[in-house]
Amino acid sequence: MTPEERFQEMLDKQAIHELMSRYAERIDANDPVGAAACFAEDGIGDYWGEFTGPEAIAERLSGILDQFSATSHNLSNVQITLDGETATALSYVYAFHRMAENYEPMHYWGRWVDELKKIKGHWFFARREVAGVGSIGRGDDDPSGLPGHPGRLTR
Amino acid sequence: MTPEERFQEMLDKQAIHELMSRYAERIDANDPVGAAACFAEDGIGDYWGEFTGPEAIAERLSGILDQFSATSHNLSNVQITLDGETATALSYVYAFHRMAENYEPMHYWGRWVDELKKIKGHWFFARREVAGVGSIGRGDDDPSGLPGHPGRLTR
Amino acid sequence: MTPEERFQEMLDKQAIHELMSRYAERIDANDPVGAAACFAEDGIGDYWGEFTGPEAIAERLSGILDQFSATSHNLSNVQITLDGETATALSYVYAFHRMAENYEPMHYWGRWVDELKKIKGHWFFARREVAGVGSIGRGDDDPSGLPGHPGRLTR
Repeated sequence: MTPEERFQEMLDKQAIHELMSRYAERIDANDPVGAAACFAEDGIGDYWGEFTGPEAIAERLSGILDQFSATSHNLSNVQITLDGETATALSYVYAFHRMAENYEPMHYWGRWVDELKKIKGHWFFARREVAGVGSIGRGDDDPSGLPGHPGRLTR
Repeated sequence: MTPEERFQEMLDKQAIHELMSRYAERIDANDPVGAAACFAEDGIGDYWGEFTGPEAIAERLSGILDQFSATSHNLSNVQITLDGETATALSYVYAFHRMAENYEPMHYWGRWVDELKKIKGHWFFARREVAGVGSIGRGDDDPSGLPGHPGRLTR
Repeated sequence: MTPEERFQEMLDKQAIHELMSRYAERIDANDPVGAAACFAEDGIGDYWGEFTGPEAIAERLSGILDQFSATSHNLSNVQITLDGETATALSYVYAFHRMAENYEPMHYWGRWVDELKKIKGHWFFARREVAGVGSIGRGDDDPSGLPGHPGRLTR
């Protein structure tokens, strides 16, 4: 790779990381439309069911966010693999929530599994799926609905 | 923007991110003077009241830190907007604490809302404010004193 | 520093950050061999005792990971100091665990204290030590075994 190509990769990774931060920030701002705008027009959001396009995704997110009076989606461990104008990524989220119903806390540890594409110089989610690794306070705290870390080995 | 300008932006963002990490590290090292040194001479720290300049900020931080036997300020979701020699930023903090008094845990989820400026090639906080989004273990666990995510929509 | 040198520093920091993310990801994938491959051939992992080389480290990690049915090592506050082909780093980890035995949660807040070296263009851990700052759910929740934040001041 030339230095120019390496620099372009760095810019792309930074832009993708910033996209992920903006998505989380819009979710925590209780703005499903703003969060859904991080998806491509034909982007798919998998939120316990697949939703296609910003409009359907915003509606789905809206229903989810109605459950909470506060949320905080703390992003970390962002790992991006670039492939020209597309990319894949795996990142971590720890999310704190207050339930709207009774103000009880709910904690969620998950992975964001992403496919991304670059359109006219800007990155968007082509597909975003969240995989739960653990939770506390959902009433169950059991492994149901928690697929775990993607590709976790059994040994 | 030229490649040189884009590279300078990347350097500036990195320097600001490192400033934020250093601030957190100095707080968790129980070093209020070191943390306050991250502020400009006329910088303002808003810690439930405004304090101006590193000396006043260090004194305020000292009083706050005396409450805890251990702290961990985990930084994430750093979003920086550059504007030449100044910048604004929004970032997330999840802070774990042990109370000095009784060793009980206290958890805090917040946002750092920052104004920054570059002085002789180095970035400093011109203004730093923390906005609470949630907490557990402060004796109340209620929304009082928690302004919530900046600009959170009501819908 | 020339722009080329500054860019190389940025690439090195990014590569080290990605190494840390990969290590965490392999741990959470229950892959002690993959995690240990992040160490140099003569690298030392300090996990309540020193272990030298990927093979011994993998064996040690294997024993540790057997205790948990799920883990999530959330990395943040990565601070890297470069010195040519070597580096040191301090970073934060918040780790969520489910105990294999009884599915109870265990929380751990720590610091990764690292020495790194670059071998044939790739970074590896030359030494990695974890320093506990706090925990909940290990049966004790007391300060024993928790050295605290490195260099924490007493004032």
